[in-house]
Amino acid sequence: MGQAKALFRPPERTSCCAFADRFLSTMNVLITGGGGFLGRKLCAALLKRGALTDVEGQLHPIARIRLFDVVPTATADPRVESLIGDIANTDDVRVALGEDTDSVFHLAAVVSGEAERNFDLGMRVNVDGTRVLLEACRALGRSKGYSPKVIFTSSLAVFGGPLPDPVPDEWPLMPQSSYGAQKAIGELLLNDMSRKGFIDGRALRLPTICVRPGRPNKAASSFLSSIIREPLSGLEAICPVEPSLRVWLLSPRRAIENLILAHELPATAFIHTRSINVPGLSVRVGEMVQALRDVAGDDVANCVHFQRDEAIERIVASWPAAFTATFGRALGMQADPDFASIVRAYLEDECR
Amino acid sequence: MGQAKALFRPPERTSCCAFADRFLSTMNVLITGGGGFLGRKLCAALLKRGALTDVEGQLHPIARIRLFDVVPTATADPRVESLIGDIANTDDVRVALGEDTDSVFHLAAVVSGEAERNFDLGMRVNVDGTRVLLEACRALGRSKGYSPKVIFTSSLAVFGGPLPDPVPDEWPLMPQSSYGAQKAIGELLLNDMSRKGFIDGRALRLPTICVRPGRPNKAASSFLSSIIREPLSGLEAICPVEPSLRVWLLSPRRAIENLILAHELPATAFIHTRSINVPGLSVRVGEMVQALRDVAGDDVANCVHFQRDEAIERIVASWPAAFTATFGRALGMQADPDFASIVRAYLEDECR
Repeated sequence: MGQAKALFRPPERTSCCAFADRFLSTMNVLITGGGGFLGRKLCAALLKRGALTDVEGQLHPIARIRLFDVVPTATADPRVESLIGDIANTDDVRVALGEDTDSVFHLAAVVSGEAERNFDLGMRVNVDGTRVLLEACRALGRSKGYSPKVIFTSSLAVFGGPLPDPVPDEWPLMPQSSYGAQKAIGELLLNDMSRKGFIDGRALRLPTICVRPGRPNKAASSFLSSIIREPLSGLEAICPVEPSLRVWLLSPRRAIENLILAHELPATAFIHTRSINVPGLSVRVGEMVQALRDVAGDDVANCVHFQRDEAIERIVASWPAAFTATFGRALGMQADPDFASIVRAYLEDECR
Repeated sequence: MGQAKALFRPPERTSCCAFADRFLSTMNVLITGGGGFLGRKLCAALLKRGALTDVEGQLHPIARIRLFDVVPTATADPRVESLIGDIANTDDVRVALGEDTDSVFHLAAVVSGEAERNFDLGMRVNVDGTRVLLEACRALGRSKGYSPKVIFTSSLAVFGGPLPDPVPDEWPLMPQSSYGAQKAIGELLLNDMSRKGFIDGRALRLPTICVRPGRPNKAASSFLSSIIREPLSGLEAICPVEPSLRVWLLSPRRAIENLILAHELPATAFIHTRSINVPGLSVRVGEMVQALRDVAGDDVANCVHFQRDEAIERIVASWPAAFTATFGRALGMQADPDFASIVRAYLEDECR
């Protein structure tokens, strides 16, 4: 795929002066992985919000959101444009950035299970893709005289090995998966290129997102959404871990809020690092089912059956169950207050 | 430079069976950056030692040491071969590895000042070069059915920002220089590829090496060698920092010993990380001059003149002055006992 193709064209821009237009009136946004679940939610939230803050701290209306992905994304809003392309292909990424992108949300990634099975694919998308994107932002910024903002979704998988509970902000990157190693490399690139002024980056280590809409997938964490989503649709669900197991969660709604907040922060909020452990909710799986019972009743909650799968339990139990997230909280990022709120948000957002 | 060129050919190998030869009788070593100060010292130490342990834990004589660098390295020993090539060029690196390399010492790097001035060069040599080398080792191992050992010199520059004193093993990678970021990326690649069994890597974060022979260079740390080396040659030397400033040092002799020890350790010595903070000596600059006085007398020590350079002092004072190096010590790595020993080792090794 050597050339990115526009599937939906936005209306012609009205300003005759791209430079003045960018600084004085509007913001153009690129979302990589824009066709994914979080990318589409982020796009909808940005459209609803309608404006973003530029590098000078000025709020401007959003003129265009470009969704870049390997598959097309249907959209009705004239401000939204769908582009297909390869994140590791410099030409595709340059086309996606164009001459007038102000901000990038970099969500495109090969997920953890796939990156572990296919090391080379993970390196290509998660490492090369991130580097290609950051270098293209650097080139754009150099030609235009500013540092594009880049909001990058990193992962708790950058941590591993013996971990304190909760994990403090000052803890080594010690990934025990290729996905985690690749995300850590992305963070290092983003941090150093921000320090050099090539870009203005922010990396968010997101908790496990729950409740995800849609269908179960092969991720070890998939059941954390299934045990809420399936019962609310009248379906049975298997919980493969002990009720006492603790996990670190964030609702899609809060994830999007924190991504946008990270964009809106001034660069001066960051001194030695652009990497942030995003606050989450530390909760036992049994408490998740109890919250489902409280919100939706016994009939729904009784659809969850505990049936241990030691392979899944071993993986999920190896993940950190809580973080202090001191820096993230100081920046204003917020976790969900309790799991019942997460269930209610899912009902409001996905089950209307 | 598309093709590495052999400058000095070793004698023909006597075995008719490369496989049996490798496993049963000899070890072949590649040193990248083999023409540098540490590379040449390492080569001499390996020749003197004469043998290394293979991946099975068996000690075998060293049949060949290949010195790979951008410039040729003269050598008289028939076991040593000099190759010139580009560490970021896959063809050059494959030629350097050949079909029968058992172990690689990866010392080739763009140094800190240069990596900061020329970001792209640093990325090319320190990141791409390391990745090309590790991938070539993976390909060699896959075709031969073993995991080549790779000993990588990383740096304390992977740390930065506010640091505890001493820095514990459990401390985040937070580089504040492109050199540090690039070395940290190299560590992540080496760790993940070791975890996957592609290679058998070990990354050593070396203290500042002192006393370096030769001439001063433009590194901020250059004076740490100059204030010992120049007076011992009857020359004046300027110390640009306060006598009370503490630094973290290791003699070249101990650095080489620790690199070889890292090679000899079994893979089972490593669980969650292959990265090691190498033990060093934490010493005040004033104590260094006093040790010079004790070893070589007043006339020599009086050649050192204190004349502050705030730019240099700011850089050097930002470096960590001490580490617990708990893991490195547990592996058997050793620091120099005191600075007088370092001065005496320099006199023995370089001033005969």
